[in-house]
Amino acid sequence: MLTKSADAVGHLFDDATRVAAGDSRWRGHTSEDYWAFVGPFGGVTAATMLRAIIEHPQRAGDPLALTVNFCAPIAQGPFDLDVRLIKANRSTQHWSVELTQNGADVATFASAVFAARRPSWSHQVARPPKAPPFEQTRPYPKSSLNMSWVRQYDFRFVEGEPQLGGPPHAKPGGAFSTLWIADSKPRPVDLLSLMSMSDAFFGRIFHVRNEFVPFGTVSLTTYFHAGADDLAGENISHVLAVADAKIFYRSFGDQSGELWSPNGRLLATTTQMAYFKA
Amino acid sequence: MLTKSADAVGHLFDDATRVAAGDSRWRGHTSEDYWAFVGPFGGVTAATMLRAIIEHPQRAGDPLALTVNFCAPIAQGPFDLDVRLIKANRSTQHWSVELTQNGADVATFASAVFAARRPSWSHQVARPPKAPPFEQTRPYPKSSLNMSWVRQYDFRFVEGEPQLGGPPHAKPGGAFSTLWIADSKPRPVDLLSLMSMSDAFFGRIFHVRNEFVPFGTVSLTTYFHAGADDLAGENISHVLAVADAKIFYRSFGDQSGELWSPNGRLLATTTQMAYFKA
Repeated sequence: MLTKSADAVGHLFDDATRVAAGDSRWRGHTSEDYWAFVGPFGGVTAATMLRAIIEHPQRAGDPLALTVNFCAPIAQGPFDLDVRLIKANRSTQHWSVELTQNGADVATFASAVFAARRPSWSHQVARPPKAPPFEQTRPYPKSSLNMSWVRQYDFRFVEGEPQLGGPPHAKPGGAFSTLWIADSKPRPVDLLSLMSMSDAFFGRIFHVRNEFVPFGTVSLTTYFHAGADDLAGENISHVLAVADAKIFYRSFGDQSGELWSPNGRLLATTTQMAYFKA
Repeated sequence: MLTKSADAVGHLFDDATRVAAGDSRWRGHTSEDYWAFVGPFGGVTAATMLRAIIEHPQRAGDPLALTVNFCAPIAQGPFDLDVRLIKANRSTQHWSVELTQNGADVATFASAVFAARRPSWSHQVARPPKAPPFEQTRPYPKSSLNMSWVRQYDFRFVEGEPQLGGPPHAKPGGAFSTLWIADSKPRPVDLLSLMSMSDAFFGRIFHVRNEFVPFGTVSLTTYFHAGADDLAGENISHVLAVADAKIFYRSFGDQSGELWSPNGRLLATTTQMAYFKA
């Protein structure tokens, strides 16, 4: 079994999401390895905020839901995380995290629900996507993409691979994709990387229009359907993911996605709203 | 055209979601007309928190995303709303709202993104559900449901009508429903009622098991795909909705839903995680 100590030490993802504890205020630093258009890749910012809660001494249970609102660009450099336990019940915790830089306004705001995942009746309604194994799927060539975060992931499209670099679509193309996602340097999938991967889809509008347009996620919500122990038991380094969109309207569009284990287990679901200029 | 002044005055929904402005602290009161198992119907609580932002003098633009985390039961009686503008940009605002009672811990926590909905390229990817008109669909009989909030809505199932009261399913039934939702006393659908309706689905687990089990939403996120002016232009008093679930696992299950205008326009999408005991 892959273990965190054996494989994650020195991984860029762990460097990028490192936090140092203070009292209520924690510290982090942006990573050039996970940079997007005009700031850090949102998935790593979300994972960093999640890490600050997970590593908090008062944390109990596993994350159930994390919502991250991207309020303003984050500049290269250090940032502060104000981590607050809003309410704790017997088996549930509610948290908020505010990310600020140099005492300025909040740049990113997160709220989270943690819970003790007790045994219960269970039923997986959704069906896993059909796909050839990861090893038999061609890696997506990233030479045309000039963003460092994209290089940290190994994307392998099963359906809906974008043809970016070709001409824009004359009429809207499909918004749906099925793809494998792995860290380029293999790393066991844990709650933190699952959080980051839940934001690691190309903007749906790039697929639909087959071109880059100014784009930025404004709100991201991810639900976890596996606990830390479930993920450790899965012992995987890649997930099978689907993403889709329902609407693009008046400068904002949505995205929904699912992250599956190769064994056909639903690990996380995610939705987001994103700004676009088109 | 229905107007708010003509039809909404004296509507129980507007009574239930009324807020009185303070400085940063606003006041509201629970409504016996929208009561659920052990507290107020979550949709009305969410709509009340949204109303406090919409009526705030600093509010600009339309709601884009609202996430509500239900932290603890709300008791019958008055409550305080601490409304905070976290960050304002040129065309986007980020808000939080904390609901407390008698100075105790936070009972409900919300974060919201508002934005100026500027004209843009648009594309509706999702297809509206097929359904006979509202007027030709049979209202769901609610005699077996002993919750006041249910009486405030006129549910008309097109697909997946629950047979609650009959024996529980021996094996899991379907989680998917298509239904019309209207206020029992007609009221023009606005952003507030859309927010409330986005939580007005029966718990998916009731459908799947065909029985009531202890159940409560812990986190709810709704995205708005129409502005206040779009909704006024639609001039509708009912929406066509679909709801589904992907998984029930270790005491928590998800729900996702869509709310459509009768004219085939996607107005809102919603997801939630809920606790269950089964």
